[in-house]
Amino acid sequence: MSDDHADDSAADAEDGHHEPERETFSHDPIGHAEARAGMTVGELADEYGNAGVGAADLHEAVDVTESMFDDDVTVFFGLAGAMVPTGMRRIVADLIREGHIDVLVTTGANLTHDSIEAIGGKHHHGAVHAEGKTEREHDETLRDEGVDRIYNVYLPQEFFATFESHLREEVFPTLEEEGIVSIQRLTEELGRANAEVNEREGVSEGPGIAAAAYENDVPIYCPAVQDSVLGLQAWMYSQTSDFSLDALADMTALTDTAYYAEEAGAFIVGGGVPKNFTLQTMLVAPDAYDYAVQLTMDPKQTGGLSGATLDEARSWGKLEKDADNVSVYADATITFPLVVAAALERLAN
Amino acid sequence: MSDDHADDSAADAEDGHHEPERETFSHDPIGHAEARAGMTVGELADEYGNAGVGAADLHEAVDVTESMFDDDVTVFFGLAGAMVPTGMRRIVADLIREGHIDVLVTTGANLTHDSIEAIGGKHHHGAVHAEGKTEREHDETLRDEGVDRIYNVYLPQEFFATFESHLREEVFPTLEEEGIVSIQRLTEELGRANAEVNEREGVSEGPGIAAAAYENDVPIYCPAVQDSVLGLQAWMYSQTSDFSLDALADMTALTDTAYYAEEAGAFIVGGGVPKNFTLQTMLVAPDAYDYAVQLTMDPKQTGGLSGATLDEARSWGKLEKDADNVSVYADATITFPLVVAAALERLAN
Amino acid sequence: MSDDHADDSAADAEDGHHEPERETFSHDPIGHAEARAGMTVGELADEYGNAGVGAADLHEAVDVTESMFDDDVTVFFGLAGAMVPTGMRRIVADLIREGHIDVLVTTGANLTHDSIEAIGGKHHHGAVHAEGKTEREHDETLRDEGVDRIYNVYLPQEFFATFESHLREEVFPTLEEEGIVSIQRLTEELGRANAEVNEREGVSEGPGIAAAAYENDVPIYCPAVQDSVLGLQAWMYSQTSDFSLDALADMTALTDTAYYAEEAGAFIVGGGVPKNFTLQTMLVAPDAYDYAVQLTMDPKQTGGLSGATLDEARSWGKLEKDADNVSVYADATITFPLVVAAALERLAN
Amino acid sequence: MSDDHADDSAADAEDGHHEPERETFSHDPIGHAEARAGMTVGELADEYGNAGVGAADLHEAVDVTESMFDDDVTVFFGLAGAMVPTGMRRIVADLIREGHIDVLVTTGANLTHDSIEAIGGKHHHGAVHAEGKTEREHDETLRDEGVDRIYNVYLPQEFFATFESHLREEVFPTLEEEGIVSIQRLTEELGRANAEVNEREGVSEGPGIAAAAYENDVPIYCPAVQDSVLGLQAWMYSQTSDFSLDALADMTALTDTAYYAEEAGAFIVGGGVPKNFTLQTMLVAPDAYDYAVQLTMDPKQTGGLSGATLDEARSWGKLEKDADNVSVYADATITFPLVVAAALERLAN
Repeated sequence: MSDDHADDSAADAEDGHHEPERETFSHDPIGHAEARAGMTVGELADEYGNAGVGAADLHEAVDVTESMFDDDVTVFFGLAGAMVPTGMRRIVADLIREGHIDVLVTTGANLTHDSIEAIGGKHHHGAVHAEGKTEREHDETLRDEGVDRIYNVYLPQEFFATFESHLREEVFPTLEEEGIVSIQRLTEELGRANAEVNEREGVSEGPGIAAAAYENDVPIYCPAVQDSVLGLQAWMYSQTSDFSLDALADMTALTDTAYYAEEAGAFIVGGGVPKNFTLQTMLVAPDAYDYAVQLTMDPKQTGGLSGATLDEARSWGKLEKDADNVSVYADATITFPLVVAAALERLAN
Repeated sequence: MSDDHADDSAADAEDGHHEPERETFSHDPIGHAEARAGMTVGELADEYGNAGVGAADLHEAVDVTESMFDDDVTVFFGLAGAMVPTGMRRIVADLIREGHIDVLVTTGANLTHDSIEAIGGKHHHGAVHAEGKTEREHDETLRDEGVDRIYNVYLPQEFFATFESHLREEVFPTLEEEGIVSIQRLTEELGRANAEVNEREGVSEGPGIAAAAYENDVPIYCPAVQDSVLGLQAWMYSQTSDFSLDALADMTALTDTAYYAEEAGAFIVGGGVPKNFTLQTMLVAPDAYDYAVQLTMDPKQTGGLSGATLDEARSWGKLEKDADNVSVYADATITFPLVVAAALERLAN
Repeated sequence: MSDDHADDSAADAEDGHHEPERETFSHDPIGHAEARAGMTVGELADEYGNAGVGAADLHEAVDVTESMFDDDVTVFFGLAGAMVPTGMRRIVADLIREGHIDVLVTTGANLTHDSIEAIGGKHHHGAVHAEGKTEREHDETLRDEGVDRIYNVYLPQEFFATFESHLREEVFPTLEEEGIVSIQRLTEELGRANAEVNEREGVSEGPGIAAAAYENDVPIYCPAVQDSVLGLQAWMYSQTSDFSLDALADMTALTDTAYYAEEAGAFIVGGGVPKNFTLQTMLVAPDAYDYAVQLTMDPKQTGGLSGATLDEARSWGKLEKDADNVSVYADATITFPLVVAAALERLAN
Repeated sequence: MSDDHADDSAADAEDGHHEPERETFSHDPIGHAEARAGMTVGELADEYGNAGVGAADLHEAVDVTESMFDDDVTVFFGLAGAMVPTGMRRIVADLIREGHIDVLVTTGANLTHDSIEAIGGKHHHGAVHAEGKTEREHDETLRDEGVDRIYNVYLPQEFFATFESHLREEVFPTLEEEGIVSIQRLTEELGRANAEVNEREGVSEGPGIAAAAYENDVPIYCPAVQDSVLGLQAWMYSQTSDFSLDALADMTALTDTAYYAEEAGAFIVGGGVPKNFTLQTMLVAPDAYDYAVQLTMDPKQTGGLSGATLDEARSWGKLEKDADNVSVYADATITFPLVVAAALERLAN
């Protein structure tokens, strides 16, 4: 402990505080955030920049995202978790259409839910519990009523039937002629079909992520596609046709994109396979990510990949030594719209 | 939202699927959040209302907060965690001055940090690790340099000396004449002194929470004051004077306020003693809280009080059966400014 | 437990209090856990059964696991997270050899690390930070020194070179002759080669999980194999040969196993693809899981799959209505050895 | 562990790879945990020592606890959270009786629940949800039935009436004659009364923590006593008598104990006030804690005190520079019995 209290007290009496010599400490005062009626999201993000911990991380995430959305940066976007069922679909589609995403890596589940909404199905606000039922009985009732539950979001099961028809009529037949195709070929064709049906049927919900990717030549990679209803459908179709999926074929194109990128940024929502696959892409490129933003709620201390810090990725050579990276540990349904809105506001000014 | 269910049913009929009768499921489609450059925080909160999980909780929190800030509601505000060192001080002070907080329950730590900033001290952005040091060596270095660390916030230790002088010159002598006083009497006198010194010294940072409470007749309760530097200082002074603190005296006034409240709301940031003490207040009142908002990052499944759901508080009679309550499980330095800004925007419209 | 309720009722009557009629409440007193020197893990698990929250969940997990290890139950084991690098490899291999695991679903990362140890490589205890370095500089240094970090575990990078040679010499050539193979075929051949090299080189560490699976006819499914060094190696080899992997081929065998299982149990460590793929398997079987244990640290409230409760899986028909299921929310490196040791002790008695 | 590095180097040389010079990396291989039927808890803890992350932390916690229980170390034990309602009461009482705890800092809630069990009341296993009810309706029903819920533990409300009688008949009258007393005086008298009534009424559950502390001259400090039913009862009694509690009086004795301790250890279960007050105690002593173990589930990244690392406490001078400290981030109802049983086994050998 410091025994300069006597000195300090004397100096205090004079009203001139003296500061011991400090190397580690640098003068960078915390400001206090202000909350004003009518403030914009960008202004809120600036106020976060005054504050500490999570707020400061979020402010930094806005900074890095703003840099990442610059034209010269090739953005690899990893999307995991239940982001589509929980209402984040439009933001991703808009980012693709505005040219802020160059490569998308996601889960079969997100593509499944994205497609269902494109072709006229709908997710609904639900509840973890229903009036008069326990969580368990509630789920039994939902099953009886033909409704699937994802936390507090419902999906009526008939939409899976609609989705199956969609795949068997609009998507698989074209691919069948090609035999064994890459997974990206499947997602591309899915996007084309979603866009077409969405237009044709006059569906009021937008055509979504896969459609936007198709229309903007943004490849979607989905390494674990079998782990989804989309994958189950593909498998069932493969049993009675020459169609199947090559698990490795996409890695060539993805690696080339990484290889030739001037500057590369990784924007990762959630963890899991999309996160690791996005980061792993740089293992076989001479350079690594220059920018990285991670929005996740996975805890750091489990040793698992999903919560792993981006700094850890440096040891593997996945991030450049001087990369700008930040992780925001909070519910992504809150932070994702916030970070994007604030970054877009910066770019517009 | 989508009104394409007519289309779906038609399509479903063609495929031979029909929508079963459903009790549990009610038609409430998830919308997809939109992130626009220049959108206000209130508009962002509205977009959250379309989405699910954490975003939906946050949207509901804005609704309940808007109701709570109505004039007829007596608001009991619990503030725990490192909210002052991390930049949340101003928002709380502003809410007090605008009349949105009627009773404050907080920790001695928050009052300590609040006072330090009022009288000219300053917290600084720091780091969990410093260049060239491990976390442990970093903390050893900080100790040698006379700097305390709270996560990634620094507090130079000479400010504790300043604080000690402040208490011994401006606060304790008045109380000493009164002998054994209630803790609220201490916080009241502290607020008065903070306001006076802040003005007198022309400190650029605002006078803060305790000062605002003093100037607006808002009592501050601090049951665990001994667990703080403020408490340590009070103890040291008590050893050489007739001054001491009565641990129970405040509960009469607090209980009366709860008893006579027409409608009562609990706004709780963090967990701990402020949370429990705020909720407990209703145990001896005929009514309970009508509104409750909780912003916390404490996990629910530990069984601990801090992460406990507000629904659990119902079993104890702390919440009315039909209370509007919501918990948002995310970093409060992110959610607190957001919820407040959005609620204030609603009230201004 | 206490049978002093008679006394209480008497005493209550004297104080004028009576116990109201209760439907919801049933007499099931909490006991207090005892910690004794020399107690076995099974006895500790019994003590957990007296207690509440996490301890009670863990006790129930031991019960369900004991039932699951019965001969008539087909056990599908999902293994995610950094379970192999963090020392859990042997327990899984032993369970396979003892016949307690019938199907394994895991990540390419776990298979990679498992193989490295089989052929003579070694993971080492490391640190999140090193003496004299920040986390970031530490990772930069590790990269310069050719060491990868997984949280606080190190893996010298030359072992990846050893692994590459192993694959190119012992595994891929055989598969190349078969052309496009299923992923399970790859893991099978990998296990065979690991066993052989481990024996041949006299490696002191055991041959591991894949080897045990090979030697006991336990299929290993790995839907997201591309998301790993094993997958990267497979891809690189596929570029200059006829070898590739069919992403869908395994789902037929896996579905058959699920279809024909008398009783089925799911034991899931971690979340991610192994969890979802294991649970999803039951979507196309007439029955669902009768037993399910989940050991995870992923939080429930994000809406993500990894932390999702097993009850949610009921709504999808993945669990039988009357399935015995329990989740233990704690670090699996602590709970997994504990649950297994306690269950084995029960079976031995 | 493996001494196959010679083999590796040979193999590496053949492949043309060499092990670079390494400073940061030191040879410390991860072993793989083994789970054996009938193994003791101490043996399980040893197996944890092979593994990584949480398991390794737990193993280290056993080591430090073993050192702490040595006779020359003064152990300050902080107990927060719902540890008594969830079945941890007996372990703490036993540790006190065995002389392993010298000072206890806890919450009024734990003392309340401890007393209720001492005098014949009982907590019961309950459920977060009941058959046929939502969580909210369940809590409304519980309230109607007069049952309080703490996560999945029930407490019939008549026991609070029993507790009130106990305090008013056995505890407060003695204190009333002393006027304004320290909080420790209250906990001491409570312990005496609990022991007496427990014996007299032949209650089958043990007399508990406060009784053990009384009988072994272990002081119990409870800075936030007002924040509990015990505190509410004390307040109500103070309204009609000369009795009250001095909030500061205990800090003298506690500080003296810290001051004169040869070696000091802090064992902290949970976070909150007990944690901070225990660590804070060393601020006014020349030395600081030599040993510290923290068992908590509070996440680190919120900046809050409860999850704060013990390393952070070093910057404040609360831990000695060379203190042995470790935190285990997992449900304490699982880790606490485990760590204690393993440490006791070590001491017995």
